[in-house]
Amino acid sequence: MDVLFLFPVKEHHEQRLKEEFPDVNFLFDRKPDDAAALETSEVIVTYGADLDEAHIEKAKGLKWLMVASAGLEQLPQDAIARRDLTVTNVRGIHKTPMAESILAHILSYKRGLKKIYEQQARAEWNKKIGGKEVRGSNALILGPGAIGGEAGRLLQAFGVKTYGCNRSGRKADYMDEMLSFDGLLEALPGMDFVVSVLPSTPETRGLLKKEHFGAMKDTAVFLNFGRGDLYEEQDLINALNEGRPAAAVLDVFDIEPLPEDHPFWGMDNVTVSPHASSLSGKYVDRSLDIFIPNMKLWLAGKPEEMENLINTERGY
Amino acid sequence: MDVLFLFPVKEHHEQRLKEEFPDVNFLFDRKPDDAAALETSEVIVTYGADLDEAHIEKAKGLKWLMVASAGLEQLPQDAIARRDLTVTNVRGIHKTPMAESILAHILSYKRGLKKIYEQQARAEWNKKIGGKEVRGSNALILGPGAIGGEAGRLLQAFGVKTYGCNRSGRKADYMDEMLSFDGLLEALPGMDFVVSVLPSTPETRGLLKKEHFGAMKDTAVFLNFGRGDLYEEQDLINALNEGRPAAAVLDVFDIEPLPEDHPFWGMDNVTVSPHASSLSGKYVDRSLDIFIPNMKLWLAGKPEEMENLINTERGY
Repeated sequence: MDVLFLFPVKEHHEQRLKEEFPDVNFLFDRKPDDAAALETSEVIVTYGADLDEAHIEKAKGLKWLMVASAGLEQLPQDAIARRDLTVTNVRGIHKTPMAESILAHILSYKRGLKKIYEQQARAEWNKKIGGKEVRGSNALILGPGAIGGEAGRLLQAFGVKTYGCNRSGRKADYMDEMLSFDGLLEALPGMDFVVSVLPSTPETRGLLKKEHFGAMKDTAVFLNFGRGDLYEEQDLINALNEGRPAAAVLDVFDIEPLPEDHPFWGMDNVTVSPHASSLSGKYVDRSLDIFIPNMKLWLAGKPEEMENLINTERGY
Repeated sequence: MDVLFLFPVKEHHEQRLKEEFPDVNFLFDRKPDDAAALETSEVIVTYGADLDEAHIEKAKGLKWLMVASAGLEQLPQDAIARRDLTVTNVRGIHKTPMAESILAHILSYKRGLKKIYEQQARAEWNKKIGGKEVRGSNALILGPGAIGGEAGRLLQAFGVKTYGCNRSGRKADYMDEMLSFDGLLEALPGMDFVVSVLPSTPETRGLLKKEHFGAMKDTAVFLNFGRGDLYEEQDLINALNEGRPAAAVLDVFDIEPLPEDHPFWGMDNVTVSPHASSLSGKYVDRSLDIFIPNMKLWLAGKPEEMENLINTERGY
């Protein structure tokens, strides 16, 4: 059985895979225009962006597509949906670094770290950095899945009450309360932190409108670690200029890299993070931690038991 | 009974105290040179720095000294020790803001926030901020008391293994392992974070020497949120220049404010925090939260049950 790795791995990763699966023929270090490899492979492991509709059609033997990223938006979703493919992703792979980044930004904001760094650059000793406490706050988590849940678990340890918000309002781990997208506008005025880790789907694109930002506290911090198309950026810029929310920490943008002349760069109450919150140097190892058990289930003929199966119609 | 407040409180705090203790005669907004108030008061509430040896001697009626700060070092300790005074402090009042600050700095360091802020100032999009994970690290807490324990509790939530270090190695909350000061040097090479929240006492002054810094990892972060006399600052400067530890976050210094020409200001691997980690705008309220129950016990003739009693010989 051929397994095609479009996802680049290092020598020691290849070694690990060959040892785990001596009977599998791994095709490492290939490009998607390798027609022979594409046609014979039953399994393709990819970051996603390198496959187009034609590739999917040429991959006659393909049965399982393992996407080593969080979402499917860079993949030809229609072509995938037309085939009866098993699709898995690496959902949850980011949860540790991303939740740590979310907490880092929330704590930095409340404990005045940016001001501390700025004062140091001027050799200025000034205790009045406006430090506040995180404890006793309310946080709304848009998308309380693997990442949002991990952020919620950590926030709870800091004495923060967590409100999870998803389409249906169905229960989620580490959320003290749940609400549905329909209840969002009503809940926003009580929130100190509004954190989105939502993927980009037809239901989340443009979910936040002017009135949502306008309903936030003038002390609230909005953090977007999901996708940039959750709102019109101009709406957020206007809202920040009007003081609701007080500040935003953005790891994702409509256009990435963020254009040099974009207003966000120069706004005092905006932190521009270069879509780096998921990076921690452990990505490939963690991807293989997800792939290997799934591959064992695949070989055992139990694909339905695999982790991170994706509903190809919903897109996540 | 007269209770002298050298500790400044606001109108609504005075109101709260009068309502709690209608039979107590509170002397608010006084200075220690108010000889009459000093002589008649059974209880004095002070920040500490305003009382000298002569004041203590003149305070003939004084039985309980409530110090609204963490340590006694600003007080005339010998004069206090000569009298049979009950002394309490506000130990633990700082635990929430300080533990939040400690976590903020640890997370900021590992998740690259300073680099993110610097890049933003240049409108530079660069994902290579060197982000690492906190999870899976080892942290040594010098002084695992109220503040150290709270930091330990939070670090454990992040999947960090905590090692408490005190004089005797006696057990402390939220520490996975314990060691005594004698075992410190041996433990340091395994630590990713070394956090001191030690008070200044004869046993802690100069506790960390060249060899301690030299024993730290070249990736370790040293954080001092206790007192600046834990080491000779020049030893720490040399150690940082030699790359062990990799970085330091300092909230306390030998001389405060830190002199303008001090090398720490300009060192890339040092964060100078202006002794601000305990500030969060809730100090007086929290002090009264500690004082009021103690005052009730004092009036009930149960001073031995009071919280935060200080051993005046040890100084904490």
